[in-house]
Amino acid sequence: MKSLETLVNEFKEYVKKMVHYNEALSLMFWDLRTGAPKKGVAARAEAIGTLSTEVFKMATSPQMEEYLTALSEPGVYEQLDRITRGIVRECKKEFDRSKKIPQDRYQEYVVLTSQAESVWEEAKHTSDFAMFQPYLEKIVAMNIEFIGYWGYKEHKYDTLLDQYEPGMTVKKLDAIFGELRRNTVDLVQAIVHSSTSKPDVQPFLKFYDPLKQREFSRYILEKMGYDFQAGRLDETVHPFEITLNQGDVRVTTKFDPHDLRSALFSTIHEGGHALYEQNVSPELAGTPLSSGTSMGIHESQSRFWENIIGRSYEFWQCFYRDLVRAFPAQLSDVSLDAFYRGINVVEPSLIRIEADEVTYNLHIMIRYEIEKGLIQGDIRVADLPEIWADKMKDYLGIVPKNDAEGVLQDVHWSGGSFGYFPSYSLGNIYAAQFTHALEKEMPDFKERIKNGDLRSIKEWLSEKIHKHGKLLTPSEIIQAVTGEEINATYLVRYLENKFKPLYHLN
Amino acid sequence: MKSLETLVNEFKEYVKKMVHYNEALSLMFWDLRTGAPKKGVAARAEAIGTLSTEVFKMATSPQMEEYLTALSEPGVYEQLDRITRGIVRECKKEFDRSKKIPQDRYQEYVVLTSQAESVWEEAKHTSDFAMFQPYLEKIVAMNIEFIGYWGYKEHKYDTLLDQYEPGMTVKKLDAIFGELRRNTVDLVQAIVHSSTSKPDVQPFLKFYDPLKQREFSRYILEKMGYDFQAGRLDETVHPFEITLNQGDVRVTTKFDPHDLRSALFSTIHEGGHALYEQNVSPELAGTPLSSGTSMGIHESQSRFWENIIGRSYEFWQCFYRDLVRAFPAQLSDVSLDAFYRGINVVEPSLIRIEADEVTYNLHIMIRYEIEKGLIQGDIRVADLPEIWADKMKDYLGIVPKNDAEGVLQDVHWSGGSFGYFPSYSLGNIYAAQFTHALEKEMPDFKERIKNGDLRSIKEWLSEKIHKHGKLLTPSEIIQAVTGEEINATYLVRYLENKFKPLYHLN
Repeated sequence: MKSLETLVNEFKEYVKKMVHYNEALSLMFWDLRTGAPKKGVAARAEAIGTLSTEVFKMATSPQMEEYLTALSEPGVYEQLDRITRGIVRECKKEFDRSKKIPQDRYQEYVVLTSQAESVWEEAKHTSDFAMFQPYLEKIVAMNIEFIGYWGYKEHKYDTLLDQYEPGMTVKKLDAIFGELRRNTVDLVQAIVHSSTSKPDVQPFLKFYDPLKQREFSRYILEKMGYDFQAGRLDETVHPFEITLNQGDVRVTTKFDPHDLRSALFSTIHEGGHALYEQNVSPELAGTPLSSGTSMGIHESQSRFWENIIGRSYEFWQCFYRDLVRAFPAQLSDVSLDAFYRGINVVEPSLIRIEADEVTYNLHIMIRYEIEKGLIQGDIRVADLPEIWADKMKDYLGIVPKNDAEGVLQDVHWSGGSFGYFPSYSLGNIYAAQFTHALEKEMPDFKERIKNGDLRSIKEWLSEKIHKHGKLLTPSEIIQAVTGEEINATYLVRYLENKFKPLYHLN
Repeated sequence: MKSLETLVNEFKEYVKKMVHYNEALSLMFWDLRTGAPKKGVAARAEAIGTLSTEVFKMATSPQMEEYLTALSEPGVYEQLDRITRGIVRECKKEFDRSKKIPQDRYQEYVVLTSQAESVWEEAKHTSDFAMFQPYLEKIVAMNIEFIGYWGYKEHKYDTLLDQYEPGMTVKKLDAIFGELRRNTVDLVQAIVHSSTSKPDVQPFLKFYDPLKQREFSRYILEKMGYDFQAGRLDETVHPFEITLNQGDVRVTTKFDPHDLRSALFSTIHEGGHALYEQNVSPELAGTPLSSGTSMGIHESQSRFWENIIGRSYEFWQCFYRDLVRAFPAQLSDVSLDAFYRGINVVEPSLIRIEADEVTYNLHIMIRYEIEKGLIQGDIRVADLPEIWADKMKDYLGIVPKNDAEGVLQDVHWSGGSFGYFPSYSLGNIYAAQFTHALEKEMPDFKERIKNGDLRSIKEWLSEKIHKHGKLLTPSEIIQAVTGEEINATYLVRYLENKFKPLYHLN
């Protein structure tokens, strides 16, 4: 019989191999998005397919099953150190999720979603929901079927939520989002009807030299405490952060020569994600625990930096002079106050990814309610364009002219990512809640921002959140940092405190 | 029993998986050399180790043995199409080479050479051969031991040559290099003693903006027929070409702000390698045959473009005006003739990689003779500094002041790459021989260069050489293209025809 130590070491080696394959996969993905030549893409996709299949096989192999069975046994699991336990938990979760679905059904689903993505692109292009409808119907049906295999306690949709936000449920989310919705709808209406003159965004739409934008992006990343010796900044079409390993956490952005805001805020946003990944404890390196604990907590880091820091008055009290120095012709006649108002314009709009801090969450709630209804069987795919329009009217007071700027705008459903959208708003909620705790522990928080001392803020986040990686669950993190469960009140309060003065509301 | 068709398909799938792993490995290597962040390097090396080990396992697995045994059987092999036969040959060669060495000895060798590389770096830095000597002794001893496992016919060193230049032997090489050496030594002496004023290289050493150098490098690559939709140009410390797949063949170069020649000629050189890889027949894609057939033939393509085209008078008759336009301040007072003489300066020098077209091959021959002697047992490692100095004196008339600029200058031996050096000169010899054939078939060859019509020259090379990939051996290629075996006379003649007029010799 093998000793437990031998078994654990073998298991860790096995898992490390998967981590190494994933590093190769991440690099291949990054490369495709940052400059791989067109003619190599088809062969690259095949290579990615080969390596992904291999990782999937390793994650679901009889060997993996043997390790997990042996190490999960009562009397054994308790003897493991916390890191090994965490690895077992993570692997078991993935193993169960993958093994419970019959392999042929899973294969069909992979094919279906990859076809659906192309069809969605075409449907969006021609603004033709009917074209996409049969695919979406099948994807929804297969998700319901899979939930049957996986099982659920209260609500079928819980099982999907749990993939992205472990422990999150419809029950909790209904309460959280309910509070947020009521307050947000009121705030948006008050802003829409305020008599204050509209912030001017024209200065942002002048020509901004991409090379200078790059310089400024790098400058801000450095100020945030992003470590360029453990990462790099590149350009892409849709900005993202990607982790190759703890010492190689890359950020991408998009330099729009005719909109200063694009690279500025996407860099800060992705930089927030990157700080999380760069600051996971080194003892978790080379394990599946070396990453953010959930989509929601991850998004809390990007939104914290993008919005709570990056769109704050104090931040620009410090950095606006540098920005004007970089772009004197475009900005020297724009006052700090005008700039601050401009980057914080609130306006109901049709497209989620262009929405401002206040209206953004309403876009998410529409998607959440639709997903919940589809999975529960209360909503039919065929009715989505109508339901979409109704909800847009209710929450934002506007309706799309066509499907492209309505129900077809997001890629997520074509890939079957139901349960993902709520993460974005959870990120905003967590971020405000973390900020509340941070301000209590660091009373000069705003002063520090104003002085450009962002690194001490980063240190606080790293110590409280980043270093744990996946060792703590989202709910353990929020409890440990703030002393309570997730609570939307802090976001509501933050939004009111920020936007009421901006729009001269009382 | 499986049908032959099934067996072949399974075998090809198996091999394709290795090709895909190698694509990931190549990308990881490229990334390390072009901008991977420092702190991620250690984990990256581990990931590379994991994937390499996996490819090695696949190449030497019982499964591979089964395929090779079944497909090599008489009566079976003959039924295979030529591509499948080629794949079987390639895999069998690698299988035999790897399996014949006891695994523990191979492991020791891997560890030894990786240690030796660090020691060599340090030894070179401090110019201390004694420090490197024990490692080199072990490496030589293990190479001799491995030859024992692999077997040899006439000369032990043949087995090492065959790794890089299939079919090449000491017997052939002694004859080829003998002729080349006699003629080259005479030519070098004639040049050294010529009364012509020395070409002026000062203009190359002014400041050249790296961004403009990049632009010009891209311009020349495009003119050569390099396909930027199937590749890209990046910057690195030691320029190289790397193939990810047929549609993704990358070139790297080094922009020295204080030497125009560095990027200019290294880009053309690596571009020559890249043209080979970009133009292998698409029917070989995804197989191990989609690459150059040997190091020597590969080097013939880079040297052809770098020297025979890129350092020709006709080439600059066409492109010098563009270069002057890119760098008017630096070059407008340098005539075409002065420029041409400057890029073709011949001068005995100590460092191989800085050597000119004429003296270069003498550097190679010194290394060849030493390697041959070491493997045969006629030369002791301890005597290398002395032998090195003697040969330098004999061939080039100069001697190094220390080991760093002598026997320690190259990395190759620390990695155990005995048998590799001759490829460089074989490349020069093949290139001149190909050029002779090309001029016969394309009598207006020089006129075309002068007109900048490099693409038709590329087409000729692709049709005659590139498209075959590894389907033909080096000797089959040179026979098919030139109607004879490898022959150094063409290089001798080319060098005399070019450099005698340049130095006003008769």
